[in-house]
Amino acid sequence: MAVVEVSILPLGTGTPSMSKYVADVLKVLKESNLKYELTAMGTIIEGDLDEVLKWIRKMHEVPFKEGIKRVVTTIEIDDRRDKGLTIEGKVKAVENKK
Amino acid sequence: MAVVEVSILPLGTGTPSMSKYVADVLKVLKESNLKYELTAMGTIIEGDLDEVLKWIRKMHEVPFKEGIKRVVTTIEIDDRRDKGLTIEGKVKAVENKK
Amino acid sequence: MAVVEVSILPLGTGTPSMSKYVADVLKVLKESNLKYELTAMGTIIEGDLDEVLKWIRKMHEVPFKEGIKRVVTTIEIDDRRDKGLTIEGKVKAVENKK
Amino acid sequence: MAVVEVSILPLGTGTPSMSKYVADVLKVLKESNLKYELTAMGTIIEGDLDEVLKWIRKMHEVPFKEGIKRVVTTIEIDDRRDKGLTIEGKVKAVENKK
Repeated sequence: MAVVEVSILPLGTGTPSMSKYVADVLKVLKESNLKYELTAMGTIIEGDLDEVLKWIRKMHEVPFKEGIKRVVTTIEIDDRRDKGLTIEGKVKAVENKK
Repeated sequence: MAVVEVSILPLGTGTPSMSKYVADVLKVLKESNLKYELTAMGTIIEGDLDEVLKWIRKMHEVPFKEGIKRVVTTIEIDDRRDKGLTIEGKVKAVENKK
Repeated sequence: MAVVEVSILPLGTGTPSMSKYVADVLKVLKESNLKYELTAMGTIIEGDLDEVLKWIRKMHEVPFKEGIKRVVTTIEIDDRRDKGLTIEGKVKAVENKK
Repeated sequence: MAVVEVSILPLGTGTPSMSKYVADVLKVLKESNLKYELTAMGTIIEGDLDEVLKWIRKMHEVPFKEGIKRVVTTIEIDDRRDKGLTIEGKVKAVENKK
Protein backbone atom coordinates (compact mmCIF):
# COMPACT_ATOMS: atom_id res chain seq x y z
CA MET A 1 0.00 0.00 0.00
CA ALA A 2 1.37 3.38 -1.05
CA VAL A 3 0.00 6.91 -0.78
CA VAL A 4 0.32 8.97 -3.96
CA GLU A 5 -0.48 12.60 -4.74
CA VAL A 6 -1.25 13.58 -8.31
CA SER A 7 -1.81 16.96 -9.93
CA ILE A 8 -2.76 17.23 -13.60
CA LEU A 9 -2.34 20.70 -15.12
CA PRO A 10 -3.63 21.46 -18.62
CA LEU A 11 -1.56 24.21 -20.29
CA GLY A 12 -2.68 26.78 -22.83
CA THR A 13 -6.38 26.54 -21.98
CA GLY A 14 -7.08 30.25 -22.47
CA THR A 15 -8.65 30.58 -19.01
CA PRO A 16 -7.14 30.70 -15.52
CA SER A 17 -9.91 28.45 -14.18
CA MET A 18 -8.87 24.81 -13.77
CA SER A 19 -11.79 23.31 -11.80
CA LYS A 20 -13.67 21.93 -14.82
CA TYR A 21 -10.58 19.99 -15.89
CA VAL A 22 -9.96 18.66 -12.39
CA ALA A 23 -13.59 17.55 -12.12
CA ASP A 24 -13.37 15.68 -15.43
CA VAL A 25 -10.16 13.94 -14.38
CA LEU A 26 -11.80 12.84 -11.11
CA LYS A 27 -14.69 11.25 -13.03
CA VAL A 28 -12.18 8.73 -14.36
CA LEU A 29 -10.69 8.03 -10.93
CA LYS A 30 -14.19 7.38 -9.56
CA GLU A 31 -14.48 4.39 -11.88
CA SER A 32 -11.69 2.73 -9.87
CA ASN A 33 -12.17 1.16 -6.46
CA LEU A 34 -9.33 3.22 -5.03
CA LYS A 35 -9.69 5.35 -1.92
CA TYR A 36 -8.85 8.98 -2.64
CA GLU A 37 -9.17 12.49 -1.29
CA LEU A 38 -9.44 15.72 -3.25
CA THR A 39 -7.37 18.53 -1.69
CA ALA A 40 -6.88 22.15 -2.72
CA MET A 41 -3.60 21.23 -4.42
CA GLY A 42 -4.14 17.77 -5.90
CA THR A 43 -5.68 14.38 -5.38
CA ILE A 44 -4.27 11.92 -2.85
CA ILE A 45 -4.81 8.24 -3.65
CA GLU A 46 -4.03 5.18 -1.54
CA GLY A 47 -3.66 1.60 -2.72
CA ASP A 48 -1.44 -0.89 -4.46
CA LEU A 49 1.19 1.18 -6.28
CA ASP A 50 0.79 -0.46 -9.68
CA GLU A 51 -2.99 -0.10 -9.49
CA VAL A 52 -2.70 3.57 -8.51
CA LEU A 53 -0.23 4.30 -11.34
CA LYS A 54 -2.50 2.54 -13.86
CA TRP A 55 -5.35 4.88 -12.97
CA ILE A 56 -3.15 7.99 -12.93
CA ARG A 57 -2.08 7.07 -16.45
CA LYS A 58 -5.76 7.11 -17.51
CA MET A 59 -6.38 10.40 -15.69
CA HIS A 60 -3.46 12.02 -17.52
CA GLU A 61 -5.23 11.37 -20.86
CA VAL A 62 -8.45 13.20 -19.93
CA PRO A 63 -7.48 16.78 -20.84
CA PHE A 64 -6.10 15.62 -24.21
CA LYS A 65 -9.50 14.11 -25.03
CA GLU A 66 -10.97 17.57 -24.43
CA GLY A 67 -8.65 19.15 -26.98
CA ILE A 68 -5.84 20.31 -24.69
CA LYS A 69 -2.44 20.06 -26.42
CA ARG A 70 -0.12 20.00 -23.40
CA VAL A 71 -0.45 18.54 -19.91
CA VAL A 72 1.98 18.70 -16.99
CA THR A 73 1.30 15.90 -14.50
CA THR A 74 3.10 15.70 -11.16
CA ILE A 75 3.08 12.45 -9.19
CA GLU A 76 4.55 12.04 -5.70
CA ILE A 77 4.75 8.47 -4.42
CA ASP A 78 5.24 7.76 -0.70
CA ASP A 79 5.95 4.04 -0.46
CA ARG A 80 6.81 2.37 2.84
CA ARG A 81 7.44 -1.35 3.00
CA ASP A 82 7.92 -2.11 6.72
CA LYS A 83 4.29 -1.15 7.26
CA GLY A 84 1.54 -0.04 4.89
CA LEU A 85 0.70 3.63 4.52
CA THR A 86 -2.85 4.98 4.37
CA ILE A 87 -4.19 8.50 3.92
CA GLU A 88 -5.88 8.40 7.33
CA GLY A 89 -2.98 6.68 9.09
CA LYS A 90 -0.42 9.22 7.89
CA VAL A 91 -2.45 12.20 9.13
CA LYS A 92 -3.24 10.53 12.47
CA ALA A 93 0.41 9.66 13.11
CA VAL A 94 1.24 13.38 12.97
CA GLU A 95 -1.78 14.51 15.00
CA ASN A 96 -0.95 12.01 17.76
CA LYS A 97 2.44 13.69 18.19
CA LYS A 98 1.17 17.26 18.43
CA MET B 1 -4.18 35.36 -1.53
CA ALA B 2 -2.35 32.28 -2.71
CA VAL B 3 -2.64 28.61 -1.81
CA VAL B 4 0.68 26.88 -1.17
CA GLU B 5 1.57 23.24 -0.44
CA VAL B 6 4.76 22.48 1.45
CA SER B 7 6.49 19.21 2.26
CA ILE B 8 9.62 19.12 4.42
CA LEU B 9 11.60 15.88 4.25
CA PRO B 10 14.52 15.24 6.63
CA LEU B 11 17.10 12.91 5.05
CA GLY B 12 19.37 10.43 6.77
CA THR B 13 17.31 10.17 9.94
CA GLY B 14 17.96 6.46 10.46
CA THR B 15 14.23 5.67 10.71
CA PRO B 16 11.51 5.44 8.06
CA SER B 17 9.05 7.24 10.35
CA MET B 18 8.58 10.92 9.55
CA SER B 19 5.58 11.89 11.71
CA LYS B 20 7.60 13.28 14.62
CA TYR B 21 9.43 15.66 12.28
CA VAL B 22 6.20 16.76 10.59
CA ALA B 23 4.59 17.40 13.98
CA ASP B 24 7.54 19.57 15.08
CA VAL B 25 7.44 21.57 11.85
CA LEU B 26 3.71 22.20 12.35
CA LYS B 27 4.31 23.59 15.83
CA VAL B 28 6.11 26.50 14.16
CA LEU B 29 3.34 27.07 11.63
CA LYS B 30 0.79 27.18 14.46
CA GLU B 31 2.50 30.30 15.80
CA SER B 32 1.38 32.12 12.63
CA ASN B 33 -2.15 33.33 12.01
CA LEU B 34 -2.29 31.52 8.68
CA LYS B 35 -5.04 29.10 7.75
CA TYR B 36 -3.64 25.67 6.93
CA GLU B 37 -4.61 22.06 6.46
CA LEU B 38 -2.49 18.99 7.15
CA THR B 39 -2.90 16.33 4.45
CA ALA B 40 -1.35 12.88 4.05
CA MET B 41 1.24 14.33 1.65
CA GLY B 42 2.03 17.78 2.97
CA THR B 43 0.62 20.93 4.50
CA ILE B 44 -1.55 23.32 2.49
CA ILE B 45 -1.43 26.97 3.58
CA GLU B 46 -3.49 29.91 2.36
CA GLY B 47 -2.69 33.59 2.73
CA ASP B 48 -0.61 36.47 1.47
CA LEU B 49 2.23 34.87 -0.54
CA ASP B 50 5.08 36.73 1.17
CA GLU B 51 3.66 35.91 4.60
CA VAL B 52 3.28 32.23 3.68
CA LEU B 53 6.83 32.03 2.32
CA LYS B 54 8.20 33.72 5.45
CA TRP B 55 6.67 30.98 7.61
CA ILE B 56 7.77 28.17 5.30
CA ARG B 57 11.31 29.50 5.60
CA LYS B 58 11.05 29.11 9.39
CA MET B 59 9.52 25.63 9.07
CA HIS B 60 12.42 24.53 6.86
CA GLU B 61 14.86 25.23 9.73
CA VAL B 62 13.12 22.97 12.26
CA PRO B 63 14.71 19.60 11.37
CA PHE B 64 18.20 21.18 11.36
CA LYS B 65 17.63 22.37 14.94
CA GLU B 66 16.97 18.72 15.82
CA GLY B 67 20.34 17.64 14.44
CA ILE B 68 19.28 16.64 10.91
CA LYS B 69 22.01 17.42 8.37
CA ARG B 70 19.97 17.50 5.13
CA VAL B 71 16.44 18.62 4.35
CA VAL B 72 14.56 18.52 1.05
CA THR B 73 11.68 21.00 1.05
CA THR B 74 9.16 21.14 -1.79
CA ILE B 75 6.92 24.19 -2.20
CA GLU B 76 4.12 24.49 -4.74
CA ILE B 77 2.57 27.93 -5.09
CA ASP B 78 -0.81 28.39 -6.78
CA ASP B 79 -1.25 32.13 -7.24
CA ARG B 80 -4.22 33.61 -9.05
CA ARG B 81 -4.62 37.36 -9.38
CA ASP B 82 -8.01 37.84 -11.07
CA LYS B 83 -9.64 36.42 -7.96
CA GLY B 84 -8.21 35.20 -4.66
CA LEU B 85 -7.73 31.50 -4.05
CA THR B 86 -8.63 29.77 -0.80
CA ILE B 87 -8.25 26.17 0.33
CA GLU B 88 -12.00 25.78 0.72
CA GLY B 89 -12.87 27.66 -2.46
CA LYS B 90 -10.59 25.55 -4.64
CA VAL B 91 -12.07 22.26 -3.43
CA LYS B 92 -15.67 23.55 -3.72
CA ALA B 93 -15.12 24.79 -7.27
CA VAL B 94 -14.27 21.23 -8.31
CA GLU B 95 -17.05 19.60 -6.30
CA ASN B 96 -19.63 21.93 -7.83
CA LYS B 97 -18.70 20.63 -11.28
CA LYS B 98 -18.92 16.94 -10.48
CA MET C 1 7.32 11.73 -26.97
CA ALA C 2 7.25 13.19 -23.49
CA VAL C 3 9.93 14.65 -21.24
CA VAL C 4 9.82 13.38 -17.66
CA GLU C 5 11.83 14.32 -14.56
CA VAL C 6 12.19 11.78 -11.78
CA SER C 7 13.71 12.02 -8.31
CA ILE C 8 13.94 8.98 -6.06
CA LEU C 9 14.63 9.74 -2.38
CA PRO C 10 15.39 6.94 0.09
CA LEU C 11 14.27 7.89 3.62
CA GLY C 12 15.79 6.83 6.93
CA THR C 13 19.17 5.87 5.49
CA GLY C 14 21.20 7.09 8.47
CA THR C 15 23.45 9.24 6.28
CA PRO C 16 22.82 12.58 4.54
CA SER C 17 24.68 11.36 1.44
CA MET C 18 22.40 10.25 -1.40
CA SER C 19 24.80 9.83 -4.33
CA LYS C 20 25.31 6.07 -3.91
CA TYR C 21 21.55 5.50 -4.12
CA VAL C 22 21.19 7.75 -7.16
CA ALA C 23 24.06 5.94 -8.90
CA ASP C 24 22.42 2.55 -8.27
CA VAL C 25 19.07 3.76 -9.58
CA LEU C 26 20.78 5.03 -12.75
CA LYS C 27 22.31 1.62 -13.38
CA VAL C 28 18.80 0.33 -13.99
CA LEU C 29 17.88 3.19 -16.33
CA LYS C 30 21.04 2.51 -18.36
CA GLU C 31 19.62 -0.89 -19.30
CA SER C 32 16.87 0.91 -21.24
CA ASN C 33 17.38 2.55 -24.61
CA LEU C 34 15.94 5.80 -23.35
CA LYS C 35 17.74 9.12 -23.69
CA TYR C 36 18.29 10.74 -20.30
CA GLU C 37 20.25 13.43 -18.51
CA LEU C 38 21.39 13.46 -14.91
CA THR C 39 20.98 16.89 -13.29
CA ALA C 40 21.78 18.13 -9.79
CA MET C 41 18.13 17.68 -8.80
CA GLY C 42 16.95 14.57 -10.63
CA THR C 43 17.06 12.64 -13.86
CA ILE C 44 15.33 13.89 -17.00
CA ILE C 45 14.19 11.21 -19.44
CA GLU C 46 12.69 11.57 -22.91
CA GLY C 47 10.70 8.99 -24.83
CA ASP C 48 7.36 7.30 -25.21
CA LEU C 49 5.47 8.03 -22.00
CA ASP C 50 4.48 4.43 -21.25
CA GLU C 51 8.04 3.25 -21.84
CA VAL C 52 9.44 5.97 -19.59
CA LEU C 53 6.97 5.16 -16.81
CA LYS C 54 7.77 1.45 -17.06
CA TRP C 55 11.44 2.17 -16.39
CA ILE C 56 10.74 4.65 -13.60
CA ARG C 57 8.68 1.92 -11.93
CA LYS C 58 11.77 -0.33 -12.00
CA MET C 59 14.01 2.47 -10.73
CA HIS C 60 11.68 3.06 -7.77
CA GLU C 61 12.33 -0.52 -6.58
CA VAL C 62 16.12 -0.17 -6.40
CA PRO C 63 16.51 1.35 -2.90
CA PHE C 64 14.11 -1.28 -1.45
CA LYS C 65 16.38 -4.03 -2.79
CA GLU C 66 19.20 -2.40 -0.82
CA GLY C 67 17.25 -2.63 2.42
CA ILE C 68 15.65 0.84 2.47
CA LYS C 69 12.17 0.76 4.02
CA ARG C 70 10.68 3.96 2.60
CA VAL C 71 11.11 5.74 -0.72
CA VAL C 72 9.59 9.02 -1.89
CA THR C 73 9.58 9.23 -5.70
CA THR C 74 8.57 12.40 -7.53
CA ILE C 75 7.69 12.27 -11.22
CA GLU C 76 6.92 15.29 -13.38
CA ILE C 77 5.57 14.55 -16.85
CA ASP C 78 5.60 17.21 -19.57
CA ASP C 79 3.53 15.81 -22.42
CA ARG C 80 2.76 17.83 -25.53
CA ARG C 81 0.75 16.32 -28.36
CA ASP C 82 0.75 18.96 -31.11
CA LYS C 83 4.51 18.42 -31.44
CA GLY C 84 6.91 16.07 -29.71
CA LEU C 85 9.07 17.32 -26.85
CA THR C 86 12.73 16.47 -26.44
CA ILE C 87 15.26 17.37 -23.75
CA GLU C 88 17.41 19.24 -26.25
CA GLY C 89 14.49 20.87 -28.06
CA LYS C 90 12.98 22.28 -24.87
CA VAL C 91 16.24 23.93 -23.76
CA LYS C 92 16.95 25.31 -27.25
CA ALA C 93 13.46 26.81 -27.55
CA VAL C 94 14.18 28.92 -24.47
CA GLU C 95 17.73 29.84 -25.46
CA ASN C 96 16.55 31.01 -28.89
CA LYS C 97 14.28 33.55 -27.18
CA LYS C 98 16.88 35.03 -24.87
CA MET D 1 24.87 26.81 0.12
CA ALA D 2 21.75 25.09 -1.15
CA VAL D 3 20.74 23.80 -4.56
CA VAL D 4 17.21 24.75 -5.61
CA GLU D 5 15.12 23.82 -8.64
CA VAL D 6 12.34 26.13 -9.73
CA SER D 7 9.66 25.79 -12.39
CA ILE D 8 7.26 28.65 -13.14
CA LEU D 9 4.16 27.67 -15.13
CA PRO D 10 1.78 30.32 -16.46
CA LEU D 11 -1.77 28.96 -16.74
CA GLY D 12 -4.47 29.91 -19.21
CA THR D 13 -2.12 31.36 -21.80
CA GLY D 14 -4.04 30.17 -24.85
CA THR D 15 -0.98 28.47 -26.35
CA PRO D 16 0.83 25.25 -25.45
CA SER D 17 4.22 26.93 -25.99
CA MET D 18 5.93 28.00 -22.76
CA SER D 19 9.45 28.94 -23.94
CA LYS D 20 8.78 32.68 -24.27
CA TYR D 21 7.63 32.81 -20.64
CA VAL D 22 10.60 30.80 -19.41
CA ALA D 23 12.99 33.07 -21.32
CA ASP D 24 11.45 36.18 -19.76
CA VAL D 25 11.68 34.69 -16.27
CA LEU D 26 15.37 33.90 -16.85
CA LYS D 27 16.08 37.51 -17.80
CA VAL D 28 15.30 38.43 -14.19
CA LEU D 29 17.50 35.68 -12.76
CA LYS D 30 20.39 36.89 -14.93
CA GLU D 31 20.37 40.18 -13.02
CA SER D 32 21.47 38.23 -9.92
CA ASN D 33 24.99 36.94 -9.34
CA LEU D 34 23.71 33.43 -8.70
CA LYS D 35 25.02 30.40 -10.55
CA TYR D 36 22.24 28.59 -12.37
CA GLU D 37 21.56 26.02 -15.04
CA LEU D 38 18.58 25.83 -17.37
CA THR D 39 17.34 22.26 -17.84
CA ALA D 40 14.49 20.83 -19.90
CA MET D 41 12.27 20.76 -16.81
CA GLY D 42 13.21 23.83 -14.81
CA THR D 43 16.03 26.02 -13.63
CA ILE D 44 18.53 24.84 -11.01
CA ILE D 45 20.10 27.57 -8.88
CA GLU D 46 22.87 27.31 -6.30
CA GLY D 47 23.70 29.78 -3.54
CA ASP D 48 22.73 31.10 -0.16
CA LEU D 49 19.16 29.90 0.42
CA ASP D 50 17.69 33.27 1.37
CA GLU D 51 19.32 34.90 -1.62
CA VAL D 52 18.01 32.19 -3.97
CA LEU D 53 14.48 32.46 -2.56
CA LYS D 54 14.55 36.26 -2.90
CA TRP D 55 15.27 35.91 -6.63
CA ILE D 56 12.69 33.16 -7.15
CA ARG D 57 10.13 35.48 -5.58
CA LYS D 58 10.97 38.07 -8.28
CA MET D 59 10.88 35.46 -11.03
CA HIS D 60 7.40 34.37 -9.94
CA GLU D 61 6.08 37.89 -10.66
CA VAL D 62 7.25 37.99 -14.30
CA PRO D 63 4.30 36.23 -15.99
CA PHE D 64 1.82 38.41 -14.07
CA LYS D 65 3.50 41.52 -15.48
CA GLU D 66 2.82 40.08 -18.95
CA GLY D 67 -0.90 39.82 -18.24
CA ILE D 68 -1.07 36.20 -17.06
CA LYS D 69 -3.71 35.74 -14.35
CA ARG D 70 -2.51 32.51 -12.71
CA VAL D 71 0.94 31.07 -12.10
CA VAL D 72 1.92 27.74 -10.54
CA THR D 73 5.48 27.85 -9.22
CA THR D 74 7.22 24.74 -7.89
CA ILE D 75 10.36 25.09 -5.77
CA GLU D 76 12.47 22.17 -4.55
CA ILE D 77 15.16 23.03 -2.01
CA ASP D 78 18.02 20.62 -1.31
CA ASP D 79 19.81 22.00 1.73
CA ARG D 80 22.70 20.17 3.39
CA ARG D 81 24.47 21.65 6.37
CA ASP D 82 27.35 19.25 7.10
CA LYS D 83 28.86 20.27 3.76
CA GLY D 84 27.78 22.74 1.10
CA LEU D 85 25.99 21.52 -2.01
CA THR D 86 26.76 22.77 -5.50
CA ILE D 87 25.22 21.96 -8.88
CA GLU D 88 28.50 20.56 -10.16
CA GLY D 89 29.38 18.73 -6.94
CA LYS D 90 26.05 16.91 -6.77
CA VAL D 91 26.33 15.57 -10.31
CA LYS D 92 29.98 14.57 -9.88
CA ALA D 93 29.29 12.70 -6.64
CA VAL D 94 26.87 10.45 -8.56
CA GLU D 95 29.13 10.05 -11.61
CA ASN D 96 32.06 9.03 -9.39
CA LYS D 97 29.99 6.11 -8.09
CA LYS D 98 28.87 4.77 -11.45
